Amino acid sequence: MTNASSPKQAVVIGAGLVGALWTVFLARRGYRVDVFERRPDMRAAGYAGGRSINLAMSVRGWAAIDKAGIRDKIEKVAIPMPGRMMHAADGQLSYQPYGKEGEAIYSVSRGGLNLELLQIADAYPNVQFHFEHRCTDVDLQNPQISFEDLRTGQHKTVEAPLIFGADGAFSAVRYALQRTDRFDYIQRYIEHGYKELTIPPAADGKHRMDPNALHIWPRGNFMLIALPNADGSFTCTLFLSFEGEISFEHLTNNDAVLAFFNRYFADAVPLMPTLVEDFWANPTSSLVTTQCYPWQWQNRILLIGDAAHAIVPFYGQGMNAGFEDCTILDTMYDAYGGDWARIIADFSAQRKKDGDAILELALRNFIEMRDLVGDPKFLLRKKIAARLHERYPGFLPVYSMVSFSNTPYHVALREDDHQNELFRRILALPGIETNWDGPEVERVFTEWVKP
Amino acid sequence: MTNASSPKQAVVIGAGLVGALWTVFLARRGYRVDVFERRPDMRAAGYAGGRSINLAMSVRGWAAIDKAGIRDKIEKVAIPMPGRMMHAADGQLSYQPYGKEGEAIYSVSRGGLNLELLQIADAYPNVQFHFEHRCTDVDLQNPQISFEDLRTGQHKTVEAPLIFGADGAFSAVRYALQRTDRFDYIQRYIEHGYKELTIPPAADGKHRMDPNALHIWPRGNFMLIALPNADGSFTCTLFLSFEGEISFEHLTNNDAVLAFFNRYFADAVPLMPTLVEDFWANPTSSLVTTQCYPWQWQNRILLIGDAAHAIVPFYGQGMNAGFEDCTILDTMYDAYGGDWARIIADFSAQRKKDGDAILELALRNFIEMRDLVGDPKFLLRKKIAARLHERYPGFLPVYSMVSFSNTPYHVALREDDHQNELFRRILALPGIETNWDGPEVERVFTEWVKP
Repeated sequence: MTNASSPKQAVVIGAGLVGALWTVFLARRGYRVDVFERRPDMRAAGYAGGRSINLAMSVRGWAAIDKAGIRDKIEKVAIPMPGRMMHAADGQLSYQPYGKEGEAIYSVSRGGLNLELLQIADAYPNVQFHFEHRCTDVDLQNPQISFEDLRTGQHKTVEAPLIFGADGAFSAVRYALQRTDRFDYIQRYIEHGYKELTIPPAADGKHRMDPNALHIWPRGNFMLIALPNADGSFTCTLFLSFEGEISFEHLTNNDAVLAFFNRYFADAVPLMPTLVEDFWANPTSSLVTTQCYPWQWQNRILLIGDAAHAIVPFYGQGMNAGFEDCTILDTMYDAYGGDWARIIADFSAQRKKDGDAILELALRNFIEMRDLVGDPKFLLRKKIAARLHERYPGFLPVYSMVSFSNTPYHVALREDDHQNELFRRILALPGIETNWDGPEVERVFTEWVKP
Repeated sequence: MTNASSPKQAVVIGAGLVGALWTVFLARRGYRVDVFERRPDMRAAGYAGGRSINLAMSVRGWAAIDKAGIRDKIEKVAIPMPGRMMHAADGQLSYQPYGKEGEAIYSVSRGGLNLELLQIADAYPNVQFHFEHRCTDVDLQNPQISFEDLRTGQHKTVEAPLIFGADGAFSAVRYALQRTDRFDYIQRYIEHGYKELTIPPAADGKHRMDPNALHIWPRGNFMLIALPNADGSFTCTLFLSFEGEISFEHLTNNDAVLAFFNRYFADAVPLMPTLVEDFWANPTSSLVTTQCYPWQWQNRILLIGDAAHAIVPFYGQGMNAGFEDCTILDTMYDAYGGDWARIIADFSAQRKKDGDAILELALRNFIEMRDLVGDPKFLLRKKIAARLHERYPGFLPVYSMVSFSNTPYHVALREDDHQNELFRRILALPGIETNWDGPEVERVFTEWVKP
């Protein structure tokens, strides 16, 4: 058993966002950490693919950043997005705040954030990074891990008493666990793919749209979104079915692509001078979700982040969930006096339901973003929810619970079911469109809120 | 593209039941077949583990055996089981026929059947078996497959234009497909494990219970079953939860095992002189189910049998489903003039829903076997279903549809849902216990049967 009296030594597989942040937490505890990463060192090689993907950081992400004591280093690159800007088909804009005054999610560059975390981790003398090391095998019995050094083609084996698999949705560590008895595993691709596009800065270097919003063009079964970057550009993502009537399979030439964008995203087209070039240069990527259990092998190997719970990006919670893994583990480290056997077993057992819940919430939010955001009933629901929250501060809309609180995800999912029932009743009230702030709504709410 | 004009050459991975039978089908078509199997040649080495597992062969299995023209070789080792013999807690027996007069499922030895199929396949000069070859890698791009020869430790690579992955629930071929984009995959272990036990022949060499029945000791959340062997013995299987109040985790010593058997299976204990020894000698094994899609890689690699659809054994359909795969493929071969590109794509697309359906039916049948078989309402339902079938031959109980017909599994599952609704209505009739053959039942049936 590895516990407080064992040598403080750990291996982290994966130097992505979660692997790098978790390395910082371990390093602060005085652990000697060896981090193995398949990709080249991005500090020398630049971001993978050179694309400037961005992510939405919300309260759970910041909580981990705070706990690691590095907020000042991260904050400077984050752009607040206090609400959504909805682009209707006719180009009309409408703005919906995400939460209360002062609450926002933050657009951060994945590459920039990863780079910053690598630098923070690497500043610890007890941290050693090993880039371009591909994990080829995990021998669970010893345990030891084999790597191929991609620069030399040489193979090496590392003994490791304590291993964290932070190697993402296609985790090699998880593939090894998958072969063990009674390991449950699901990988499921959604029917939609995505393609990244860009809105470059205006001639004066400024953003071509309001930078303090997450822009959405909801179109029923598909959507375009845009998040601001610090350099004045926006990174856009088109989410569209791979197959079907309106889908990637029909966008096979310049004319088809332009006709599609002109028809559905007409106000965005003038902002995207390299639309067609970008469309062909950037891949059409798939979206995988994974669920597994247990997240551990005995008391020595633990999966964290996407390796344990890869979700779809529609709630902006993938990174936030992985960062929250770090917060919880670091808190357990204190609570259990560094007894990894207990930490690993309890984390796997307790956190699993949160991983499943944020997956379900993210899948539901895809429907909301692409479909409901433009629906009058949905807008009415948002308006009533905000008013109820003003009047009864104990009533927290689920979006706020997920994005602006640290409430466990599985509680938020239960609350989502519960609130869906409330609004089913409220929206069925006669004349609700005009009486949305009336006594009947109060009455339904008072009844619903009773235990 | 591999089609009728290409060299007739194929690789089969796995020489288990489905791999061996499918090799016979290919060999009959004049294909040169190389079969690779991880285990030693059972003709020299005996059955794996020496245990005499048996299986229930029903109509779908026989249909494939017939189509391969080898019924006479298989029939001699099969013992008909026209019904279930239910052992109540007090030792009372009750018999339920599975179907009509003349219908039966058949107990066959897994090892004996596999051996027979290997011999039939090996008699073809165009078939070459390669035992003790572990598949270590599948290079999908070329495609070629790497093996380790377990006798010499040497590695070899085989080019293969057409590959059938018949390598079971833990298929190496499927693990390779799993890494491809948009491949959906689920592996899920049920909470129950199983342990094999034995009832040896009586002193006179005869069976100690009625050999022409599948014996069941249903006990709610767990059960014991026994299938007859040709040598006068029965192979028993205990299905029991791994954890919980009544579970394997509490059966930790001789006293606990004996107390458990004496309490729940008292009439079986005197028939099992080596019960305690067998309990410790035989492993407690887990039960995995897998689902995946697509079942193919391009037009070159196809998963069949458990590699494509591993299910639980509670409907006795695992082997039957795999054998039916062979029947369907061989039928498609004629229909599509040997065009493997079409066969592979269509098989994967059409057969998937049958694989999912028989998994669901098998999971439902576990509830029925362990729980409902001893339930008076369930027995009443069986009685009414049999009467309705007598009166309206078009009304086929789902068990018969699955076991005594070749109706696609997905149709049987739909019918199961539909019939569950019928019996929900019938069993809710007042006084149904006495009026089970009355006009009210007729009325409900007539209404239900309307389209």
